[in-house]
Amino acid sequence: MRGGSVGRTMSAAARRAEAFRALHHGRRPLLLPNAWDVASARLFEEAGFPAVATSSAGVMVSHGYPDGETMPRRDLVAAVARIARLISVPLSADIVSGYGRSVAAVVATVRSMLRAGAVGVNLEDLLPSGRGLYPLSAQVQKLRAIRRLGTSMGIPLVINARTDAFRHAAGSERERFREAVRRSVAFREAGADCVYPMGLTDAARIGAFVEEVGGPVNVMVRPGLPPVKALARLGVKRISFGPAASYATLGFLKRASREIRERGTFRLLVEGALTYDELNALARPGGSRPG
Amino acid sequence: MRGGSVGRTMSAAARRAEAFRALHHGRRPLLLPNAWDVASARLFEEAGFPAVATSSAGVMVSHGYPDGETMPRRDLVAAVARIARLISVPLSADIVSGYGRSVAAVVATVRSMLRAGAVGVNLEDLLPSGRGLYPLSAQVQKLRAIRRLGTSMGIPLVINARTDAFRHAAGSERERFREAVRRSVAFREAGADCVYPMGLTDAARIGAFVEEVGGPVNVMVRPGLPPVKALARLGVKRISFGPAASYATLGFLKRASREIRERGTFRLLVEGALTYDELNALARPGGSRPG
Repeated sequence: MRGGSVGRTMSAAARRAEAFRALHHGRRPLLLPNAWDVASARLFEEAGFPAVATSSAGVMVSHGYPDGETMPRRDLVAAVARIARLISVPLSADIVSGYGRSVAAVVATVRSMLRAGAVGVNLEDLLPSGRGLYPLSAQVQKLRAIRRLGTSMGIPLVINARTDAFRHAAGSERERFREAVRRSVAFREAGADCVYPMGLTDAARIGAFVEEVGGPVNVMVRPGLPPVKALARLGVKRISFGPAASYATLGFLKRASREIRERGTFRLLVEGALTYDELNALARPGGSRPG
Repeated sequence: MRGGSVGRTMSAAARRAEAFRALHHGRRPLLLPNAWDVASARLFEEAGFPAVATSSAGVMVSHGYPDGETMPRRDLVAAVARIARLISVPLSADIVSGYGRSVAAVVATVRSMLRAGAVGVNLEDLLPSGRGLYPLSAQVQKLRAIRRLGTSMGIPLVINARTDAFRHAAGSERERFREAVRRSVAFREAGADCVYPMGLTDAARIGAFVEEVGGPVNVMVRPGLPPVKALARLGVKRISFGPAASYATLGFLKRASREIRERGTFRLLVEGALTYDELNALARPGGSRPG
């Protein structure tokens, strides 16, 4: 694989993937911001985050599609490629449930994302309808196939396996918790580097979940999530923003709009804003790529 | 033009263009927010603004290109089309200096933007290099040609003619002011509906400029711009955000990032944020189209 330009490219991607993986095994949790465009991704990089991910909801709504798999896959890949072209830190792509029921379809999606420059993916077990979960066996097959794909492409990608079992599995709260653990353990055995249970916010439940799974666990920023220090003590290894940064910046824009329409002033638009040069700097490549 | 589906489409666009034009002749100035993606455009629409424009800097940096004409034209047109597909209020497209030195190139750009759903354009007289201005005669030819194009397409588009004479013309401050007025008057005679001098922030100068030009004048939100009521008294007819909303939301995101990295808390990310449902609502079409 070494020597040719493709070999060199793969090698750089491989190093980026390994650097991203190592961030899941540090003493402190990985703080992983989810971007929706190049400007937000580059801003996160400049702010010092060691890696960046995409938010499917953020990217899709930015392009005029509701969250899910309604945005054409080629457009989602293009959005990821635009970000990968300019950031230097590792990039993880949210691929929702993989854009297709079949293993082959999910593998094709991941291949496109790796070619676009991502070195990690998020794969959900939620059906695209939002009603119910893919069977565990099907999800495990997809994860194994993605891992094999990474090996064959020479990119040891970081696989983050999300489960929506807390919300969508059958049974009592306790049974859904058990199902989320069962799925997460199976995902890890199938090659996932990290597991990502939706709806895990409460400190006691986070601690219990981390202990049961015994490997890196990702929690999402939501109202009520404990602060970083407490999450670190609970053994959380990855804290991602999910769509929170999209929610928050649009909430800010709503407040700025209200100020202008109701009061006729521009305080929120001009105070603490970037300058023209700072904005344009976000369209230039970030610092040197690791490795 | 009536009867066929193309005729009906044109007719709806024509009505939207006329509604947009009328907003430049009200007693109160048109407050025109500049968006960079579908989410920001739809949020502005939901916030009650009667029209939306794009910011070239905002759209371009969002896609990973510095402001100017470096983002491929087809991608800029696609970004405008995505916004036009979902908003119901009139949309004005920032086309920088028109993507090309020739009249034909500028006309082709405007045609693409009208086909994408815009009913107004911003055309600058700044050279793409950012060093100096297009000759007035060349700019006047372009404006006349755009007006003829609109007529031939049955879309009485709103032309906003920007001049960078305050910053880039020769001579003293007083001479540059005179040149901005001279250009703006010529732009109006060539068919521009509104003129847009860069760098006009001071109340006295705004008042003098409006009086000299004698037609709708657009000012941009910048630090130091007087509030809406004062601008209305000065006779300003259009107040656009320019890239201010991009600067401001990215400034907000920078503060949220700092809070997370330095304090390990998520207050700015969760307080006042949109909900998941509110975010997804921005990917659905806005209210009924006027006319």
